[in-house]
Amino acid sequence: MPHAHPVSLKDIRKAVPELKGVVARTPLFENADVNALLGGRLLLKAESLQRTGAFKIRGAYWRVLNMSPEERARGAVTYSSGNHALGVARAAQLLGSSAVIVMPDDAPAAKVEAVRALGAEIVTYDRDTENSADVVWRIETDTGRIEVPPSAHPLVLAGAGTAALEMLEQAAAMDAMLDAVLVPCGGGGLTASTAIVMAEASPATAVFAVEPELFDDTRRSLEAGARIGNPKGLRTICDAIMTPIPNDVTFPINLDLLAGGLVASDDEVREAMRFAFEHFKIVTEPGAVVGLAAILNGRIDIRDRTVATVITGGNIDARRFAALLEE
Amino acid sequence: MPHAHPVSLKDIRKAVPELKGVVARTPLFENADVNALLGGRLLLKAESLQRTGAFKIRGAYWRVLNMSPEERARGAVTYSSGNHALGVARAAQLLGSSAVIVMPDDAPAAKVEAVRALGAEIVTYDRDTENSADVVWRIETDTGRIEVPPSAHPLVLAGAGTAALEMLEQAAAMDAMLDAVLVPCGGGGLTASTAIVMAEASPATAVFAVEPELFDDTRRSLEAGARIGNPKGLRTICDAIMTPIPNDVTFPINLDLLAGGLVASDDEVREAMRFAFEHFKIVTEPGAVVGLAAILNGRIDIRDRTVATVITGGNIDARRFAALLEE
Repeated sequence: MPHAHPVSLKDIRKAVPELKGVVARTPLFENADVNALLGGRLLLKAESLQRTGAFKIRGAYWRVLNMSPEERARGAVTYSSGNHALGVARAAQLLGSSAVIVMPDDAPAAKVEAVRALGAEIVTYDRDTENSADVVWRIETDTGRIEVPPSAHPLVLAGAGTAALEMLEQAAAMDAMLDAVLVPCGGGGLTASTAIVMAEASPATAVFAVEPELFDDTRRSLEAGARIGNPKGLRTICDAIMTPIPNDVTFPINLDLLAGGLVASDDEVREAMRFAFEHFKIVTEPGAVVGLAAILNGRIDIRDRTVATVITGGNIDARRFAALLEE
Repeated sequence: MPHAHPVSLKDIRKAVPELKGVVARTPLFENADVNALLGGRLLLKAESLQRTGAFKIRGAYWRVLNMSPEERARGAVTYSSGNHALGVARAAQLLGSSAVIVMPDDAPAAKVEAVRALGAEIVTYDRDTENSADVVWRIETDTGRIEVPPSAHPLVLAGAGTAALEMLEQAAAMDAMLDAVLVPCGGGGLTASTAIVMAEASPATAVFAVEPELFDDTRRSLEAGARIGNPKGLRTICDAIMTPIPNDVTFPINLDLLAGGLVASDDEVREAMRFAFEHFKIVTEPGAVVGLAAILNGRIDIRDRTVATVITGGNIDARRFAALLEE
């Protein structure tokens, strides 16, 4: 018997009409020439083209929309390296609330500036010596703000799941039966909500979490059957998914439903960014293409099969994008 | 009484089912935050996401498809700085024909390599001392190949027009009534076919040709009522639309139907590329964003109106893209 999960397909469907007109129905790209090259069908759900440049606004908006007027007046607080911050800041702005964002002091400049431009207040912390959750907790206690976590909340998961539901509908319209979906995995929220959608609506579709090779906490935790963290002090170019350890909301879902965990190296990620640039003409950020990198490097068999991945975001400095393309 | 044009909306509609499955139905992007910034609705028809990275395959494929088996065996010849070359090369390959492409010797390396990779033969010429048409004519005469011009052919125009028809359908689905459409203009084929679509299906929509400021042959010709060329020896970063003079197939259509001609400087084009990168997360080539540049620089009023432009292509070296973003 399956575990009872905090979110069901029904919860995800409930968010769909409320997000309409606020978030974009992003394209599911397919390129006949790329398919010929790979010997199978590759589908890219381009959430990089989403409002605020990442899928995160789906969950953030749905969470803030479900706050009471009194909670909205107190405002939101969250931690994020950038994409979730942008989503929460924009959601708060759209809904007449306010946001405080706790960001690592090495977050990309473009993300920090963009978050500030949306009217949010930024509090920085040191990734290696402080725990972001402690900083958020202090702000919650001091100010009465409501936490909107990047993944560990049923409403955030339900909002994120609308991307997977769209992908499934778009694939069906393209006569594509998804053999596998690869989801870039940080906190594991998009991964978990995608797994829930597929388990209920497309059970033959295998869902994999994909992580940077030095931040494969979910992969190792899935193998161990229990949450294992990453060592401190490591770095990856995939800033959006540099998470310390799986959280206790998303991990049980992922443990129950995922087909497994895959990894990609930073070099493979750079190659995948170039591939997306050359063949799909889209701007991607490093953490957004770990799934594509895994596919291009044969971590999963695409030959005569249909494999989808979510391009989770495209928020990157022009200078950094240029540097990564040229390396 | 309107002039009789070599292509009608009916001709364009005829191409639609034949192109299905070969060319992509590219997205028409709208960004609520950009609209708020501009005070009007901006719609981007992203033909940069088209197969071969530009709208050109629409017309090229339709032309080659309409060749007789005997003509296809002789093969195609054309001149192009790159995007039309890619379209013709791919169309020839898909349809079991072959292609010879006459390219300027300063065409971007990525385009030359990509054309070669599609199996086409390349013949180069000097933009300042030779006339591409003479080189094509010599090849036609010597080899019996059929010319597939970049714009000056009714079937090429009919194929290109499918992009405008899609845009109009997509706009209607978004409840957008197009006040104006700005089309990047080189040979004037996409401009002319867009004008034909709008004149017949959306007569209240004004269509403008947009050119690099030093290559404004169409704008000046429209004002003079007769074809006027550009001086030799000039350069622009907009390689895709560096044309010498309007041609005698597209210009009469444009003279009859356009609302006028607009220009953008190379600096404005660079800014527009950065704008597309930051706000829409898409890769664009310089010549593809002259329309966007004109809008961002107030050449047309977008306030409380709906203005669309075609992002005509995204074929650009990673290195050059990086350099243009950083300038």
